[in-house]
Amino acid sequence: MSSTFGSKLKVQIFGQSHAKGLGVVMDGIPAGLKIDLEEVQRFLDRRAGGKNAYSTARKEADTPTILSGMVGDTTCGAPLCAIFENANTRSGDYDKLQGNLRPSHADYAAWVKYNGFQDKSGGGQFSGRLTLPLCFAGAVCIQLLRQQGVNVYSHILSIGDIQDEKYDLVNINTKTYEPGEFPTLSSEVGTRMVDFMTQVAKEGDSVGGIVECAFMGMPVGVGEPIYDNVESCISHVMFGVPAVKGIEFGMGFDGVKQRGSQCNDAFYLDGDTVKTKTNNSGGIQGGITNGMPVVFRVALKPTPSIYKAQDTVNFRDKKEVNFQIEGRHDPCIVPRALPCVEAAAAVALYDLLLQK
Amino acid sequence: MSSTFGSKLKVQIFGQSHAKGLGVVMDGIPAGLKIDLEEVQRFLDRRAGGKNAYSTARKEADTPTILSGMVGDTTCGAPLCAIFENANTRSGDYDKLQGNLRPSHADYAAWVKYNGFQDKSGGGQFSGRLTLPLCFAGAVCIQLLRQQGVNVYSHILSIGDIQDEKYDLVNINTKTYEPGEFPTLSSEVGTRMVDFMTQVAKEGDSVGGIVECAFMGMPVGVGEPIYDNVESCISHVMFGVPAVKGIEFGMGFDGVKQRGSQCNDAFYLDGDTVKTKTNNSGGIQGGITNGMPVVFRVALKPTPSIYKAQDTVNFRDKKEVNFQIEGRHDPCIVPRALPCVEAAAAVALYDLLLQK
Amino acid sequence: MSSTFGSKLKVQIFGQSHAKGLGVVMDGIPAGLKIDLEEVQRFLDRRAGGKNAYSTARKEADTPTILSGMVGDTTCGAPLCAIFENANTRSGDYDKLQGNLRPSHADYAAWVKYNGFQDKSGGGQFSGRLTLPLCFAGAVCIQLLRQQGVNVYSHILSIGDIQDEKYDLVNINTKTYEPGEFPTLSSEVGTRMVDFMTQVAKEGDSVGGIVECAFMGMPVGVGEPIYDNVESCISHVMFGVPAVKGIEFGMGFDGVKQRGSQCNDAFYLDGDTVKTKTNNSGGIQGGITNGMPVVFRVALKPTPSIYKAQDTVNFRDKKEVNFQIEGRHDPCIVPRALPCVEAAAAVALYDLLLQK
Amino acid sequence: MSSTFGSKLKVQIFGQSHAKGLGVVMDGIPAGLKIDLEEVQRFLDRRAGGKNAYSTARKEADTPTILSGMVGDTTCGAPLCAIFENANTRSGDYDKLQGNLRPSHADYAAWVKYNGFQDKSGGGQFSGRLTLPLCFAGAVCIQLLRQQGVNVYSHILSIGDIQDEKYDLVNINTKTYEPGEFPTLSSEVGTRMVDFMTQVAKEGDSVGGIVECAFMGMPVGVGEPIYDNVESCISHVMFGVPAVKGIEFGMGFDGVKQRGSQCNDAFYLDGDTVKTKTNNSGGIQGGITNGMPVVFRVALKPTPSIYKAQDTVNFRDKKEVNFQIEGRHDPCIVPRALPCVEAAAAVALYDLLLQK
Repeated sequence: MSSTFGSKLKVQIFGQSHAKGLGVVMDGIPAGLKIDLEEVQRFLDRRAGGKNAYSTARKEADTPTILSGMVGDTTCGAPLCAIFENANTRSGDYDKLQGNLRPSHADYAAWVKYNGFQDKSGGGQFSGRLTLPLCFAGAVCIQLLRQQGVNVYSHILSIGDIQDEKYDLVNINTKTYEPGEFPTLSSEVGTRMVDFMTQVAKEGDSVGGIVECAFMGMPVGVGEPIYDNVESCISHVMFGVPAVKGIEFGMGFDGVKQRGSQCNDAFYLDGDTVKTKTNNSGGIQGGITNGMPVVFRVALKPTPSIYKAQDTVNFRDKKEVNFQIEGRHDPCIVPRALPCVEAAAAVALYDLLLQK
Repeated sequence: MSSTFGSKLKVQIFGQSHAKGLGVVMDGIPAGLKIDLEEVQRFLDRRAGGKNAYSTARKEADTPTILSGMVGDTTCGAPLCAIFENANTRSGDYDKLQGNLRPSHADYAAWVKYNGFQDKSGGGQFSGRLTLPLCFAGAVCIQLLRQQGVNVYSHILSIGDIQDEKYDLVNINTKTYEPGEFPTLSSEVGTRMVDFMTQVAKEGDSVGGIVECAFMGMPVGVGEPIYDNVESCISHVMFGVPAVKGIEFGMGFDGVKQRGSQCNDAFYLDGDTVKTKTNNSGGIQGGITNGMPVVFRVALKPTPSIYKAQDTVNFRDKKEVNFQIEGRHDPCIVPRALPCVEAAAAVALYDLLLQK
Repeated sequence: MSSTFGSKLKVQIFGQSHAKGLGVVMDGIPAGLKIDLEEVQRFLDRRAGGKNAYSTARKEADTPTILSGMVGDTTCGAPLCAIFENANTRSGDYDKLQGNLRPSHADYAAWVKYNGFQDKSGGGQFSGRLTLPLCFAGAVCIQLLRQQGVNVYSHILSIGDIQDEKYDLVNINTKTYEPGEFPTLSSEVGTRMVDFMTQVAKEGDSVGGIVECAFMGMPVGVGEPIYDNVESCISHVMFGVPAVKGIEFGMGFDGVKQRGSQCNDAFYLDGDTVKTKTNNSGGIQGGITNGMPVVFRVALKPTPSIYKAQDTVNFRDKKEVNFQIEGRHDPCIVPRALPCVEAAAAVALYDLLLQK
Repeated sequence: MSSTFGSKLKVQIFGQSHAKGLGVVMDGIPAGLKIDLEEVQRFLDRRAGGKNAYSTARKEADTPTILSGMVGDTTCGAPLCAIFENANTRSGDYDKLQGNLRPSHADYAAWVKYNGFQDKSGGGQFSGRLTLPLCFAGAVCIQLLRQQGVNVYSHILSIGDIQDEKYDLVNINTKTYEPGEFPTLSSEVGTRMVDFMTQVAKEGDSVGGIVECAFMGMPVGVGEPIYDNVESCISHVMFGVPAVKGIEFGMGFDGVKQRGSQCNDAFYLDGDTVKTKTNNSGGIQGGITNGMPVVFRVALKPTPSIYKAQDTVNFRDKKEVNFQIEGRHDPCIVPRALPCVEAAAAVALYDLLLQK
């Protein structure tokens, strides 16, 4: 425990990389809301791999089966359960790694935690595949947020050293992307990123990056002080996405270098509406939304699986070894992580919106 | 809701800046543990203001009264409640701000959220004063962690542009500080920081900074996948500390620029113990501790209260105004936030340790 | 853990019989609601002892101090904390029982659970005194329920073998009682109950009874299937009241003897309103309110403390002993439990109402 | 919300009567525990209908598919998800009742709660079919409890007016039953119950009953004061079982008639072990187990579905009607409810045991 998060909307994720299936239960969605499952599928396709030189070749039929919670295309108040089958399931207690701890994976920590009984096949319950049910939940929440006037935008801010431009925190760039299009504000930067990832892939190595995400249209007053505030809840779910190692809101780490007189967001009246001239707070003050865009950045480390031999320990035999991880893996997880970041935040925000 | 956090150890914070009192209930501490209340007091003194040119002059008798949960100096299994009196309490429905929204404070968000019924005196329930009961809880958890071999270290990594050296993630600098000593690894850098804060204070302005914190001795296997992992839980509590706008673990945002082959933490055997040669993971893999130091950095924005007139809106009268916040306030919250950061993380980690 | 209950409204109780204080934090009360503290006090007075021949002589200043959560007489959205001082506090690790386990008390179970570190003074955290903060919370919730049109009625249904008449489940008798008046529908039965309790008190013995309670005006559709339904939530809180050993809703245990054709509550239209001709369901169907009175009965066992020597074990010395409990105690807890039963149910129902 | 219960072990139930599937996620089972799925199946068979004159003819392939949480026959620490397919699923928004509110069903309360969007097919999410995943969870917990020395026994105490003998609370009758055998302590009484139910079935009517259940071998000290005590947790889950209208522990409602001097359970030493001479407390004192058998009784109302025309309201057309429910239904739910009662309590007790 706990693979559950949320308060008014509880989201329970389950599954392992090579278990028979994986899925999600969403308990607390109000009855009577329409959900477009084709749009959900398009969202899931964004995180699917196997499409290009810089993502894994593993292909799965990532199509959800809705077991419960809907009547036709409409929620009925019962918990919504969606499951996915794993096509590539293992038989028995198969451990391909034979005790080798993959560096910067959960292998060692999990082995000790579960006393050797963890599912050792693929990443077990630590697999990135578990972001699939998260993305299902997120896709649903994104639709339900949109029904209330909230829209999400995101782009890849950096891959390695290559930087896209940041969002203007007040006037978010609402550029959207076609399936397969590389999601940067600057196309030229996007091309350089793709070239760089392709090069890294050829070298059998991996690289990380930063994602920037904005939710526009959040009503004022969402978030629960002190400990279920917007930043707490978003970051809580976000760190459940594998590879996430940092998060910042508004000006974030750069803001610390400013003076208060520069950094403070002056209020003004736009007609009857209170707005701020700048948005260094990232739409959140005292942990509560203030009506400005909610903006944050998420750091994703380089994929720990690489095509190079690495020093490590074989924990079964208690000896040091040098070994190379088999199988296909993403040289850069950032493009596929983008919808996961949206999904994680959407689940947190919709839960908070329901509590309002 | 919710001013509660934690799973096995539930911590409930209550109070407002100028209410009769504030405090904390800690529900779930095992029975039979000794707590040194003098040490708790010394911890609380670290966050107390009024001691120098760069912190607020507000003075309170920040001494806890233990209402329940202990018999003598030992926990008894009942919820531990500690309260603090507010010396400066307000009478009646007093609103010093008369409707003026302080920029980058919670005033506006709270007004809308609570429909004008929020406590408008001081910061109400959004006051930094609420970190006092958090620090009580943290001081207790730090002692209980130490009883299990876990120790916490922290220092100020930056104030504005002035940078202390970072921790070596494998060999944490275990330098400790006398009361009143400025907590940087480099004393020379500390002196420059103090000078800078004093200068900023003279200008009536404020500035932010970054805190770095490390917990050594965490056993392997602490943390609950997927959504109560170590990073999720620490960050959840951390964003409850006012002014926190970012958090990163291990290499964090800088790690994204590395290749996997550089960034991966190779396992080796130190006798029978599995360790990693580097610690870019910050002691956490798959959300679970791996026995290496748990290290993270927290970004704190400049104090929004400054001694300068600012443009804002008077929400009561629905008009734009220019006004200057009265009262005393910290030109830089970072030194007083340091123990709060330790406290927030200690509460999260002790809760997870209890769940192990 | 856990001394907390509730979902949208979280109620945290703390304290021990002879600790410095005890109290309650109510987290989740909406802002802007008026609370009449004098009415709260009158409710607390109903559970106070020392007034007659059949209740304990212990007297305490059972007046709450509101630490937080209100501005004047109005809630402000912050957690509401009320505390009570214990006048009779113990010094140090005082154990009057010297290891003697009081029969049918928590002494033995607590000793094992807390490995001997439980507060052994009075009932420790198992003391009936802990119903004082519960009654505070209940008194607040009863007021807030009434503001939404919900009213509570209760009476003593039986003491030992002496029975008051049951409520007509459709037309609840809304008789109310003056302070000190014995709360039975039939005054004659009440007189016999008082005589009986006085007689039992003279014999140094104790006796139990049944309380019947009804909430009228609950809107239709309150309660969360499957596991936060109305019956689940009321009973969950109710069994936290010492001495409660059973609860039944509507026809309860007697209903099992009926045929479905007798027992089913036929719906009819009263103007536009759907009602049922009978109310054997006790206002709850599928765990959800149907608009009819919510009615339940609670069994309270005889007070385990009696003025007679009893066989037991001294757990410190691991030997069998015969001993008599000292101090003053209620020969029948039922009259003082009546407001506690109302309070427990009110907290559960108000929490569910907030979730609607 | 909420279809979840539990603290250390969280159990999430989902599904509707005629949805594509239903199931359960158990989050928090320790890794490395063996689960015998054939034994689970035998437990599920106990609640299956269609076997005799007094239960419904609906037949389903009530065989669980384990999606996750196990490797071979052993738990792996990941959430255990089991699903069941519904053979008889509906197409589209099919409402067989056409707006007729079935008396003493959830139809009316659910309609108002979900604003007409509830699943109206079968019982929707209020269907007794939802006890199938509960029984799965219970069957697992019963095995895990037995691995720790805890065993469950139960019998039908009454059907209508016909009474089996009660358990001796100290020396529980550990009689077990073959599949199909009628579970009463007295076979003669069992025969009369069967005859009575068969007669009631012929009349197209229904009848209720009482189940008595005992858990032996619970260690001392399980249960969390004040509000997650054993009685609170068992009753919380129990009232999630449809038709349950009352619960009592130990002497329960009858105990109120006794004097404390009769009712108190005197402690004595059995070798080194503390026991009580009587067990009127039902193994629970102060909400915590004392090592004696945990015994309780559960009242189940007559099945509300009967083969007779009943007065009711058509809510769609807002008019009074007289109608007869179609389909097959149990004239007495008690025999099939017996394993559900065991399951509900087992889930609560195992969760509390994990918290110890």
